[in-house]
Amino acid sequence: MVIRPYGYAIWETIQSYLDGRFKELGVQNAYFPQLIPYSFITKEAEHVEGFAPELALVTKGGGKDLEEPLVVRPTSETIINHMFAQWVQSYRDLPLQLNQWCNVHRWEMRTRPFVRTLEFLWQEGHTAHATAEEAEEEARRMIDVYTDFAINMAAMPVVPGRKSRIESFAGANCTYTIEAMMGDRRALQAGTSHNLGTNFAKAFGTQYLNRESKRHFVHQTSWGVSTRVIGGIIMTHGDDKGLRLPPRLAPVQAVIIPIVKKEEDRVPVNEAAQRLAEAAKVAGIRIDSDERQTPGWKYNYWEMRGVPVRVEVGPKDVQSGTCVTARRDMPGKEGKQMGVPMESAAFVAHIKGLLEEVQTGLAAQAAAFRDANIVDVRNYEELKEAIAAGKWARGGWAASDEEEKRVKEETQATLRCFPFDQPPGPHTCLMTGQPANEVAIFAKSY
Amino acid sequence: MVIRPYGYAIWETIQSYLDGRFKELGVQNAYFPQLIPYSFITKEAEHVEGFAPELALVTKGGGKDLEEPLVVRPTSETIINHMFAQWVQSYRDLPLQLNQWCNVHRWEMRTRPFVRTLEFLWQEGHTAHATAEEAEEEARRMIDVYTDFAINMAAMPVVPGRKSRIESFAGANCTYTIEAMMGDRRALQAGTSHNLGTNFAKAFGTQYLNRESKRHFVHQTSWGVSTRVIGGIIMTHGDDKGLRLPPRLAPVQAVIIPIVKKEEDRVPVNEAAQRLAEAAKVAGIRIDSDERQTPGWKYNYWEMRGVPVRVEVGPKDVQSGTCVTARRDMPGKEGKQMGVPMESAAFVAHIKGLLEEVQTGLAAQAAAFRDANIVDVRNYEELKEAIAAGKWARGGWAASDEEEKRVKEETQATLRCFPFDQPPGPHTCLMTGQPANEVAIFAKSY
Repeated sequence: MVIRPYGYAIWETIQSYLDGRFKELGVQNAYFPQLIPYSFITKEAEHVEGFAPELALVTKGGGKDLEEPLVVRPTSETIINHMFAQWVQSYRDLPLQLNQWCNVHRWEMRTRPFVRTLEFLWQEGHTAHATAEEAEEEARRMIDVYTDFAINMAAMPVVPGRKSRIESFAGANCTYTIEAMMGDRRALQAGTSHNLGTNFAKAFGTQYLNRESKRHFVHQTSWGVSTRVIGGIIMTHGDDKGLRLPPRLAPVQAVIIPIVKKEEDRVPVNEAAQRLAEAAKVAGIRIDSDERQTPGWKYNYWEMRGVPVRVEVGPKDVQSGTCVTARRDMPGKEGKQMGVPMESAAFVAHIKGLLEEVQTGLAAQAAAFRDANIVDVRNYEELKEAIAAGKWARGGWAASDEEEKRVKEETQATLRCFPFDQPPGPHTCLMTGQPANEVAIFAKSY
Repeated sequence: MVIRPYGYAIWETIQSYLDGRFKELGVQNAYFPQLIPYSFITKEAEHVEGFAPELALVTKGGGKDLEEPLVVRPTSETIINHMFAQWVQSYRDLPLQLNQWCNVHRWEMRTRPFVRTLEFLWQEGHTAHATAEEAEEEARRMIDVYTDFAINMAAMPVVPGRKSRIESFAGANCTYTIEAMMGDRRALQAGTSHNLGTNFAKAFGTQYLNRESKRHFVHQTSWGVSTRVIGGIIMTHGDDKGLRLPPRLAPVQAVIIPIVKKEEDRVPVNEAAQRLAEAAKVAGIRIDSDERQTPGWKYNYWEMRGVPVRVEVGPKDVQSGTCVTARRDMPGKEGKQMGVPMESAAFVAHIKGLLEEVQTGLAAQAAAFRDANIVDVRNYEELKEAIAAGKWARGGWAASDEEEKRVKEETQATLRCFPFDQPPGPHTCLMTGQPANEVAIFAKSY
C-alpha cells in the first residue's frame, strides 16, 4: 500500500499528538534493527506460534544465502528484549520506557487498505518495570492515552476494554484494546496495550538486581497504534459523498471556494478569498483557497476529501463584506450559514468555532450510531440474532475458551472485549446461564 | 545497529529541521512499500548494476516460497517511478515533489557504527519536473539545503560539489554531494542530491502531456540525508574526552551540576539548581540538573556525552547569587566563567549566549582543521604525498575515468568532488599536465 500525501498528513498529525503524550509520560524514542534473527522469534513459545504463519523472511543478503534466515519484524518484543537483557542491570535502570516509530510486516492472506496490509506504519512502545503492579499500571495508562486520542482527536467513540485469553497478543498475559464501530457496524481494534508479565523477560533473561541485591525478572508492557487507525477514521465517519475528517486531524480544515461567473469578478473575488485564507493561516488554521474553475465540481472535490468546513465567496459577498460557510458533518442547508463576516478577526473566530462544532458533531453522530447498534443479549439465541442483524451483542460471559471459539465458528463474531465500563450486575453468562462477573461484547470484525 | 534515545534525539532534531525546510519548498511526505519486486530493480540498467551486490532479499512469506523475490529497499527510485508513471498524466501534475522518512538496507561487507550499517534511517526526496532545467535547479537547491544544515546546524564545514561520473549514484546523470572532513581527516559523504535526468522515467514510462498535448518523459531528482550524518557529527567534533555536540542539535544543551559536600547544603543547592533549570526550560533551553553524587564523576559523564555547557552550583554560589559555567568546546580554565548571575533573566541570557558561542566555536575549529588539511597539489607525486600524509589533495583534474580509478587503486583515495567553490584558474590537470576546467578534491574515505 502506498500512502499518498493527503493520507500521510493525517498520520503526521497522529504522530505529533501521540509522540507528545508519550514524552510527557517519560517515554523516549529509540530505533532497533528491523531484521531479527529467526532464533529470537522462537524463544517465547506463544509468540512464535502466533506470528510464525505471518512472517516474511530474508534468506539472501549481498548475493549469498544466509546461514540463519532473518525475520522482517512483525513486532519487536524479541529484539528489544535481546537489548534490554544487556541494558537492565539494577533497579536504578527501571522503569525503562522506550518507543519506536517504524514499519512492520505481517504476511496477511486477505488485505484491505489501511486496515489489513502486508506492511504498515506504527509506533510500538516497550517498557520494563520492577514490579507487576507498575507494569499493569503502565499497560492501563497507555490504553487510556489511546482512548483519549480516539475520542478527542479522531472523534471515534471507542469502547476500551480487556481482550479474552484467546484474543490476546501472542506472548502477553493480558491485552487491553480500544474497539471502534465502523459505518458497516463491524468492529475494528484501533489500538492495543499488552501486559507481557515476565514472559519475554524469562525467554531472554532480562533481570535486575533489587535494593537487596537479589535478581528478579522485569515485568514488561508493549503497546501500539498503527496506520490502521486512519482506516478506522475513514470508516467511522465517511458517508456516500466520501470522507468526513475530524477537524483536529484533517490535513485541510477549511477550504475557500471563490465563485466567479463573470471574468471581471475574478480578481476581486480571488483577492478576497486570499485575504481570508491568509488571516486564517496566521491563526493556525489549515486552510486552502481553490481558485480553479467550476464551483460545483470543486464542492464535490473537497466533500470527497472530507474537509470539515467550506467557505463560499462570490461577487455579492465581496460587496456586502460577508460570506457563506457550510459544514461537512451536516447535509445541505442545515449546515449552511449566510452572512458570515469577512472581517479577519470575526471570520477566524467563526471558523474556529465551526471546527469545534464539526469535531463535536462527528463524535456525537458516531456515538449515537454506536449506541443504537449495541444490543444487550441474554442468551446465545439473542446473540446470534443480533450478530445476524449486523449489530454488536453485549451480554454476561463466563464460559470457556472452547465456547468462545464456538461462537466464532457459528457466527463469525469474536469476543471484542470485556469493556472497562461495565453495566451494574449481577450478570448471567449468556452461554451457560451461570453467574458471570462481567459482560463481554461480541461483533464481527475485518 | 541500535540507536539509543540519546542518539535518536539528535536524529529527531535533524528530522524536524529538514522536514520544515522541505515543506517550505513545497515538498510533501508520503510512504511507499519497502519490499520491491526484484523485476523493478532490474529495469534501470546502471541502477541494478550498482545495487545488486548489496541487496537483502525476501524469498519466503507466510510460510511459502515467493514466485519472485522481494528486495528490501536500498533506495526507492524504482517503486516510486512505478507509481509516478500512474500519477503523472499532464504538465498540471508537475512538479511532483515527495519525500519519505524511512529505513533502508545495504548489505555491506564492512560496517562501522552510524557511517556504514546494514540498515539506516534516512529521508529520500523524489521529484519529477517538466524540464531538464527545473530538475537541475531542484537537485542544486536540495544540496544547498543540506549544505545549510551541515554548516549551520551541525557545525560541519562541508565542501559541496559535484561527484565524478564514476562516483555518481547508480542511475543518475549527476550527483551533488557535501563532503565533510572527520577528525582522522578521512572524507565523509554526508548528503547527496541526484539529477536523474530521464533515466528512470524511460525505464518506467513516466510521461506527461505538455500544453500542446505532446508526450514527454519527466526529468527527475532524488536526494537524501541519513543517520550517517550523526556519525559525521561525532567524528567531526569529538575529542579524547568524548563527544562534543553542536548546541543546535544537542539533546541536552546545558547541564547543571549541584556541588554538595556537606549534607546541610543539599537542599538549598539542589533547590537553586532546580530554579535555574526551570527558568532555562521555560526559555526553550534543553537543560538537565544532575543531582547524583560526586561532582568530578558527573563532569566526566556529561563531557563524554558532549553537552555544550556545564553549570556548577555550590553552597557559596547560592550565598553570592552567582554560579560558574564551562564550555565543552574550550578546555579547562579558558572556557570557564565565574560570577555568572543566578537571577533568571540574566542567567538565561548568559546560557543562550554561551550556546551560540559554542556553536560558532565548534564550527570555527572544524573549519580551521579542514583548511589546515587540504593541500593544493600540482601533480600526481604531490597528490600521493598529500594522501600518504593523511590529508586531502586538491588540484586540476581533466583526466579519464581510468586514471581516476588508478588513483584509487594506488592511493586508496577517491575523487570526493569537484567543489562548487573553485579557486581562480587557469588549472592544469595534475595527472596529464593538460589544461583543466576545474579542480577536484581527492581523499580517503570510510
